[in-house]
Amino acid sequence: MTGGIKEGDQSVGLDILKQKMANFAKERDWDQFHSPRNLLLALVGEVGELSEIFQWKGEVPKGLPDWKEEEKVHLGEELSDVLLYLVRLSDICGIDLGKAALRKVELNAIKYPASNTNNGIAESG
Amino acid sequence: MTGGIKEGDQSVGLDILKQKMANFAKERDWDQFHSPRNLLLALVGEVGELSEIFQWKGEVPKGLPDWKEEEKVHLGEELSDVLLYLVRLSDICGIDLGKAALRKVELNAIKYPASNTNNGIAESG
Amino acid sequence: MTGGIKEGDQSVGLDILKQKMANFAKERDWDQFHSPRNLLLALVGEVGELSEIFQWKGEVPKGLPDWKEEEKVHLGEELSDVLLYLVRLSDICGIDLGKAALRKVELNAIKYPASNTNNGIAESG
Amino acid sequence: MTGGIKEGDQSVGLDILKQKMANFAKERDWDQFHSPRNLLLALVGEVGELSEIFQWKGEVPKGLPDWKEEEKVHLGEELSDVLLYLVRLSDICGIDLGKAALRKVELNAIKYPASNTNNGIAESG
Repeated sequence: MTGGIKEGDQSVGLDILKQKMANFAKERDWDQFHSPRNLLLALVGEVGELSEIFQWKGEVPKGLPDWKEEEKVHLGEELSDVLLYLVRLSDICGIDLGKAALRKVELNAIKYPASNTNNGIAESG
Repeated sequence: MTGGIKEGDQSVGLDILKQKMANFAKERDWDQFHSPRNLLLALVGEVGELSEIFQWKGEVPKGLPDWKEEEKVHLGEELSDVLLYLVRLSDICGIDLGKAALRKVELNAIKYPASNTNNGIAESG
Repeated sequence: MTGGIKEGDQSVGLDILKQKMANFAKERDWDQFHSPRNLLLALVGEVGELSEIFQWKGEVPKGLPDWKEEEKVHLGEELSDVLLYLVRLSDICGIDLGKAALRKVELNAIKYPASNTNNGIAESG
Repeated sequence: MTGGIKEGDQSVGLDILKQKMANFAKERDWDQFHSPRNLLLALVGEVGELSEIFQWKGEVPKGLPDWKEEEKVHLGEELSDVLLYLVRLSDICGIDLGKAALRKVELNAIKYPASNTNNGIAESG
């Protein structure tokens, strides 16, 4: 993996987001609301807001060349909301999300070998 | 984990996941399928699978004390699928997800000051 | 089916909703926006809004005995938004939703025979 | 469409679906599982399956001219699953979905007057 994480990298880690979310909830006494299914429904709500951004646009090209800066900022916020609830849900469930994600990439590589180009995309995920 | 995470650090970074997803797609010639709205719908599909895990369980306590190890592994996989498509969608849209997430935490801290305990939870997100 | 549809019944039919949605779009020149995937994402957006109503509530008893009238009205609106986009999506895809739903109930009855009480709920749907 | 459902109409009503779902659950002793949030998460699961059908297809034209009959049947099943859980969720919450939907259409007509063609689509829903 060249070009990924290197010494002095500024990459944001999942653990720091987890910690920030835990602190955020604690400081507001919101732990009482952060049950697994509450967080899951909050996540679904954010996925809905993310979908609303794309809903009337028809097909959208990669890199969003025609989007205004303001729209991209909004998109970044909705993507972030999904991520933050996902990180929090994982934490509350006792799942190490980063470790699980790395493992899932490995499983996917076995399920969809690189030589089978274009095959299996229909059933992927 | 060679190359990715540096010695001492246990945290998985968003950039390494982004890079792994990009490589994965490239090796399988899947870039052609990874348009923003395709990836968004794939994300929604994974959120559906995540929801199915919780759908008939009623309220679930934090830490999932009564879940079998097998169920937790499955949960980790579905959480990961959501994360991986979210990371990929962000990349394809040209959004720096880690940076956006840190900024969103800051915005949330302004929107919901820590002194207003218990207030605003109903409208959060 | 006793007690269901009877002569002079005021039951709302799926066809009348389909027709109302078609007229609504036509009168506003919105047919151009109502492609299958646009409508699907709009549906996901509404499911998100529906989820937001339930997200911080913990488990909720049947009949919503503690909800204010205002909350129930809001819930009815979000349930309706999901229904209306579902009806519209089906129409645009050329699917007879009512016919398909009756058929699906029959298929479910075969898949989950009534004698197998409590069995199969985990895989239903 | 004058007067809605006419004599001899084959339109499927929401009430008959509600009754069928109630009978189905009762016959299988599934009422115990049909709490509002369980049903909501089951609905989200079905929306995920619906999204999976469209996820790798890029933009899809109205009427799905290039889809195989088998794919359309599958689509009808997933649309139906969403509808059936929506009907059941409404019933369990004590919401008259048909009445609410007709009211919502009226509210939408006020919110988006027909003369404002093309305006407001971005915020609709």
